[in-house]
Amino acid sequence: MSGTHFRRVALIGLGLIGSSIAWATRRAGAADEIVGYARSAQTRATARKLGFCHKVVESPAEAVEDADLVIVCVPVGACGAVTAEIAGSLAAGAIVSDVGSVKTSVIAQMAPHLPANVHFVPAHPLAGTEHSGPESGFAELFDSRWCILTPLPDADPHATRRLRSYWEALGARTDEMTAEHHDLVLAVTSHVPHAIAYTMVGVADDLQRVTDSEVIRYSAAGFRDFTRIAASDPTMWRDVFLNNREAVLDILGRFAEELFVVQRAIRTGDGDYLHDYFTRTRAIRRGIIEAGQDTAAPDFGRIHKAEKGRAG
Amino acid sequence: MSGTHFRRVALIGLGLIGSSIAWATRRAGAADEIVGYARSAQTRATARKLGFCHKVVESPAEAVEDADLVIVCVPVGACGAVTAEIAGSLAAGAIVSDVGSVKTSVIAQMAPHLPANVHFVPAHPLAGTEHSGPESGFAELFDSRWCILTPLPDADPHATRRLRSYWEALGARTDEMTAEHHDLVLAVTSHVPHAIAYTMVGVADDLQRVTDSEVIRYSAAGFRDFTRIAASDPTMWRDVFLNNREAVLDILGRFAEELFVVQRAIRTGDGDYLHDYFTRTRAIRRGIIEAGQDTAAPDFGRIHKAEKGRAG
Repeated sequence: MSGTHFRRVALIGLGLIGSSIAWATRRAGAADEIVGYARSAQTRATARKLGFCHKVVESPAEAVEDADLVIVCVPVGACGAVTAEIAGSLAAGAIVSDVGSVKTSVIAQMAPHLPANVHFVPAHPLAGTEHSGPESGFAELFDSRWCILTPLPDADPHATRRLRSYWEALGARTDEMTAEHHDLVLAVTSHVPHAIAYTMVGVADDLQRVTDSEVIRYSAAGFRDFTRIAASDPTMWRDVFLNNREAVLDILGRFAEELFVVQRAIRTGDGDYLHDYFTRTRAIRRGIIEAGQDTAAPDFGRIHKAEKGRAG
Repeated sequence: MSGTHFRRVALIGLGLIGSSIAWATRRAGAADEIVGYARSAQTRATARKLGFCHKVVESPAEAVEDADLVIVCVPVGACGAVTAEIAGSLAAGAIVSDVGSVKTSVIAQMAPHLPANVHFVPAHPLAGTEHSGPESGFAELFDSRWCILTPLPDADPHATRRLRSYWEALGARTDEMTAEHHDLVLAVTSHVPHAIAYTMVGVADDLQRVTDSEVIRYSAAGFRDFTRIAASDPTMWRDVFLNNREAVLDILGRFAEELFVVQRAIRTGDGDYLHDYFTRTRAIRRGIIEAGQDTAAPDFGRIHKAEKGRAG
């Protein structure tokens, strides 16, 4: 058995991420058996029908029995309660992980429940779509995406290495940092952009002077990318904001401050300032393309042939 | 000759939009001849090499001679000056149009220079990519995108209809509204989203606590869509903000107000408010998909096969 192989992987939560982990684990041949549990009977029924788990069981405690890898894939706000439910049934030596978009809060919720004889290695795969539920998962979701592990200071390096190899087998690139730093980085790259997108879509919806059909019809001019972001799962995002409150408020404050500076430049007609500002932000885009996190294809406002086919 | 056919189309400005109009006009067979002019000698040389115009000339006045359709495709801030240069050479009965993202200001700049014997029909094709320059144009840019015409109250309906048919021949869907309403609609769907995206990318760039490489590496979590928007042409966008100042400041003010409400819900931990808010914004996304302005394909954070091929 290589370090990336597990005998039995237990997935607690079978939404977009849980089901995608199952598909990707099968594709990689990274486990002998995948056992799944979801709180909702409907999700369990859908999961059984789709067949991405070898077995879908009726309780989280049953799911983790004899598992050497347990991944909690529930919204951040539900991690503590579910960990309390599985704690007594965990196998000695098991690796327990999660997929939460916030790490300090998840650690604070999960760690107190876990017995000393398991290895807790929090992780966050930076992958998703604006769809949710067990039918939205697919094996390629993590391909070339990053998975950030935030092991605690006293973590067993061997367990961390095994989990890293597992995520790499699922197609991801991996990195390690502290939970606190993770939460700040994600506030900048994900949480605050989502808060802003949600807010702008809310503003458009509220305006009485521009009709809904105009907003929708002319969305391709920039707004459309905001609506895509703002269509993400409401429960997941509520929990993200409530659980990464400090870092989000910190960056939101910084954003509001900067927005007022840009706003003043518009008001005073300071064209040089705006031109310099927009030139600087363009360079960041080039860095992202060079880092392989996007392509230079002229995507903005376009519908791809591949998408057309899939949307049909 | 059908209403969509012109004898000679003059394009003043040969960047992304001008060159795409040329390619789309050729594809549609919508003109016998396309004559182009660009201020920069380098752009003229590139345009000659790429061959999308039948003729690239050395002055804007020369370009418009004998043209029955003249389209000014320069940044909004340069429309007035270029119109002054062509005014004396326009053919009687010619339709003069533009492609500016702001309409009241463009009308104020262009109309005073135009002789009474031409038909001025301002227009705005809502299409673009984050790339600029004559080599970034392509014939499909306007396919299924909207082109909004903002004819003045005393405009000749026949000229407006001809221009509308022309844009439809180029692949666009067309609509008509007043210039004032256009500028408000675009402030909501395009200008303010761009201002916000530029600002958020600026914030990320300024932060000392999160490294540039972290921002770039983890951009796929949401920030990436902002950088795509914020990579648009700095000159074009400077001019948009300076020329649609009133509507942009109006909507920006509304956005800042709303952001503070969302921020307070995060600070006070009002999960119900956030969940309701995020559920409401999701519905707008569905409207956009139904209106055919995007697809439901799980795009977020993914690189499409089609893009991979084009980026190679």
